[in-house]
Amino acid sequence: MLDFDRYDRIRPIRREGDTLELLDQRRLPGEVDYVVCETADDVAGAIADLVVRGAPAIGIAAAWGVVLAARDLEDAADGQAASARLDPVFRRLHAARPTAVNLAWALARMRRVLEAAGEDWRYVLEREAAAIAAEDLVANRRMGELGAALIAPGSGVLTHCNTGSLATSGFGTALGVIRAGVASGHIERVFAGETRPWLQGARLTVWELQQDGIPATLIADSAGAHLMKAGGVQWVVIGADRICANGDTANKIGSYQLAIAARHLGVKFMVVAPSSTVDMGTPDGAGIEIELRDSNELLGYGGARLVAEGVEAWNPVFDVTPAELIDVIVTELGVVENPTPAKMAAMFGHL
Amino acid sequence: MLDFDRYDRIRPIRREGDTLELLDQRRLPGEVDYVVCETADDVAGAIADLVVRGAPAIGIAAAWGVVLAARDLEDAADGQAASARLDPVFRRLHAARPTAVNLAWALARMRRVLEAAGEDWRYVLEREAAAIAAEDLVANRRMGELGAALIAPGSGVLTHCNTGSLATSGFGTALGVIRAGVASGHIERVFAGETRPWLQGARLTVWELQQDGIPATLIADSAGAHLMKAGGVQWVVIGADRICANGDTANKIGSYQLAIAARHLGVKFMVVAPSSTVDMGTPDGAGIEIELRDSNELLGYGGARLVAEGVEAWNPVFDVTPAELIDVIVTELGVVENPTPAKMAAMFGHL
Repeated sequence: MLDFDRYDRIRPIRREGDTLELLDQRRLPGEVDYVVCETADDVAGAIADLVVRGAPAIGIAAAWGVVLAARDLEDAADGQAASARLDPVFRRLHAARPTAVNLAWALARMRRVLEAAGEDWRYVLEREAAAIAAEDLVANRRMGELGAALIAPGSGVLTHCNTGSLATSGFGTALGVIRAGVASGHIERVFAGETRPWLQGARLTVWELQQDGIPATLIADSAGAHLMKAGGVQWVVIGADRICANGDTANKIGSYQLAIAARHLGVKFMVVAPSSTVDMGTPDGAGIEIELRDSNELLGYGGARLVAEGVEAWNPVFDVTPAELIDVIVTELGVVENPTPAKMAAMFGHL
Repeated sequence: MLDFDRYDRIRPIRREGDTLELLDQRRLPGEVDYVVCETADDVAGAIADLVVRGAPAIGIAAAWGVVLAARDLEDAADGQAASARLDPVFRRLHAARPTAVNLAWALARMRRVLEAAGEDWRYVLEREAAAIAAEDLVANRRMGELGAALIAPGSGVLTHCNTGSLATSGFGTALGVIRAGVASGHIERVFAGETRPWLQGARLTVWELQQDGIPATLIADSAGAHLMKAGGVQWVVIGADRICANGDTANKIGSYQLAIAARHLGVKFMVVAPSSTVDMGTPDGAGIEIELRDSNELLGYGGARLVAEGVEAWNPVFDVTPAELIDVIVTELGVVENPTPAKMAAMFGHL
């Protein structure tokens, strides 16, 4: 059994008094600083601006955003009445980021309990948000054990983006598997792609692992195939922003390129995400909206513009890895190997 | 016939009086500034520090480095005597960067004419350096025409790193093909990968194309597969730092990953380089030394450190694309499709 408490040092989302405090991930690792959100609008803005990021964390923050809005709402007789008046809040939070399904999932869950609630609807919302956060942590620990068990002792792994405590309630999804794998000796070497343009790997992942005393080696995103060819890694382990009914998986831009290289070079490819990331209502990747962010994210860094004025950039921040390139999807409900629509339906059809 | 003179606006290597002036590519596009080299040591340092980069440009700069050293040498009766005394200079220049073969090739060529020269050995060296530079420009124009002819009208292309005037005597290798293809209407869309860690694509390639009025769209290196899948490009067109006797090609880190993705997605892959980049003495990619540069190149940018202290990085700046993933190698001597040792020997066996 893992000593999970070792891994709860970072708390990106804190409910404090009447506010929500979000660890400002734009400023890590240089500054560890929290942004205070007093309204649901503050939360929606923080999600859009990447103060908080990572599919599960976005869902949790949005759930707390509903709680903040509920606090400010004049009295409503019951949950039905409150739901009608909170409708614009739900919409605004939902629109903050388009690709990750966890945001929509958490809001739908909040809405469902709200509409069933009586006069204690504020309490019901607060309790549900707390449950969403707590369940996420437990799910991550379970996925960590399930995923690590699939990795042969002494392996090296490559991850992409940040899927750790910073992206979740704690422990992480793909990074949870890596934590569990390092703790159990299954993983001996950890590599992290820097993850342009936002550098989640360079700024967040290696910092987060450093807090746990887990050494990780940073590489350029473009060096993944060279690393695989050199024998440095046996698995690529990533998270997900949306998993379709056939197993197609939307994740940070670059995941697809790594999946192609992994298959070409005989390296295994693992997707790790809670079942809240599974979207059985979307048949396949063609139905996923890929978020295009401002091209300025590619035109400079740290306030300095590195690219000539007038240059255009194309900045899709996610891509879709087709199911046939995925060796295994790990969720807290279990593991799907070589995903197909039938296997996905068997595991997630009830969702 | 192309209006080649349109494309000779950038001169990264200038022989001025008793000095060599190198356009400082570390500071582009923000500042257009030349570093003045007075000695061969200055030139070797400028090559190691990336003031000048790009396989052909490094060879040209090194040739001029020999000329600077010759100027400072006390009288030698003939080329043989001068060669013996210039031996440390040749070694120092040769050691400045390990992967690109053009550096070794240019120095070997200088050495050969020097050893055959009589008392006019200084003049012979100066003439040979000028010839190396002039021949490179002519070769690039020829490759541009040969390569562009292979691309179907209306295509999109993706390039990586910088292979333009900045990397050569002028016009460029892969970027020469792109210039010629745009001029002839074969190429309608140009995408450039930003090329971490040094951002040659973001800082140099899109700037260089902008000088010619050729619009190019910048992408993250990790977005290549997503772009190919979306149908944006029909060819990946890159340069080379060394091409082995079997066609295996060393080029900027990330080239291999793009080649794998291109093959997987039915996109064609073109390598463009002068025959001086072909190294028939190295049978295949296993024999190529891959330069590992300082990990600090990955840990920050523009003076700002982006990564936590104590984090390690692995920074190989080249990788090897195996011949079987290359659809065509374009040199000034002609085109090799689906390279094999036999086809390579037929085209380059005399080198």
